[in-house]
Amino acid sequence: MAGLLPGSRAALTARLAPLSKTDGGANHPSLYDLPMPTATPISARDDDLAQVTYNADGLVPAIVQDVATHRILMMAWMTEDTLRKTLATGRTVFWSRSRQEEWAKGETSGDRQWVREAYYDCDGDTLLFVVEQEGKGACHTGEFSCFYRSFGSSALDPAH
Amino acid sequence: MAGLLPGSRAALTARLAPLSKTDGGANHPSLYDLPMPTATPISARDDDLAQVTYNADGLVPAIVQDVATHRILMMAWMTEDTLRKTLATGRTVFWSRSRQEEWAKGETSGDRQWVREAYYDCDGDTLLFVVEQEGKGACHTGEFSCFYRSFGSSALDPAH
Repeated sequence: MAGLLPGSRAALTARLAPLSKTDGGANHPSLYDLPMPTATPISARDDDLAQVTYNADGLVPAIVQDVATHRILMMAWMTEDTLRKTLATGRTVFWSRSRQEEWAKGETSGDRQWVREAYYDCDGDTLLFVVEQEGKGACHTGEFSCFYRSFGSSALDPAH
Repeated sequence: MAGLLPGSRAALTARLAPLSKTDGGANHPSLYDLPMPTATPISARDDDLAQVTYNADGLVPAIVQDVATHRILMMAWMTEDTLRKTLATGRTVFWSRSRQEEWAKGETSGDRQWVREAYYDCDGDTLLFVVEQEGKGACHTGEFSCFYRSFGSSALDPAH
């Protein structure tokens, strides 16, 4: 699990939380007492894990959906190892095909994804994770969702 | 586009619609006057289509989401040709990797998907279609969504 990265929500809260204790002793919620996303590991059964199939590169596509807005955030790839890590840590961990290395989502950006539900499809060849998205969103462009461009829209349309 | 397949909603409506006209002339909506899903072709711009990248097999993964429930229905694959057909006909058309042939979703089952929104992601290597799902659902098992099994759930859990 990540430590407190500069700029992350955790670091921000840790830095600012003491200030909220100096508000004259009033016992009301402070802006800086917002609940933190918490990890909820999933104890997958071996029967379920055995249903998952991997392509010739040992990868399976994983769809990520936001639990609050229901929007599809992104699609990325997992190995059996990163699937197990995702379930065990309660945070999404992918395999980067371009860098050929493990990639804990949000490890550097702070835009972590906290797993709330995890599914596999009828053929076992696609995964679906419903997550609480931390930070500004899932996309490296700064957009909340990677699917911010639609077919048939004008180039001047506001991003979704 | 499909003709009126036996058992399809279109066939059912075509068969029953005349009966609703014989209800004594009353001018109220009949059960059999339910609105039919209609095709809404999308005129994709060449700029958008050019953003889509295909894997070594000429395929791109396509996520399908239900417009009403926001649930992920399925994930399947498209060629450039089936992507263009999907946009032009307003119904999802995929490429079956197992059968190595084009596959107009619902052509035989009647469980057609009527495209309402179509997106591509930041890298252009994944598509997202928001659809009106006709019939009983998207999955060949009879489930509404292909993602009906979750990790960590009991085998006795009701399907989602």
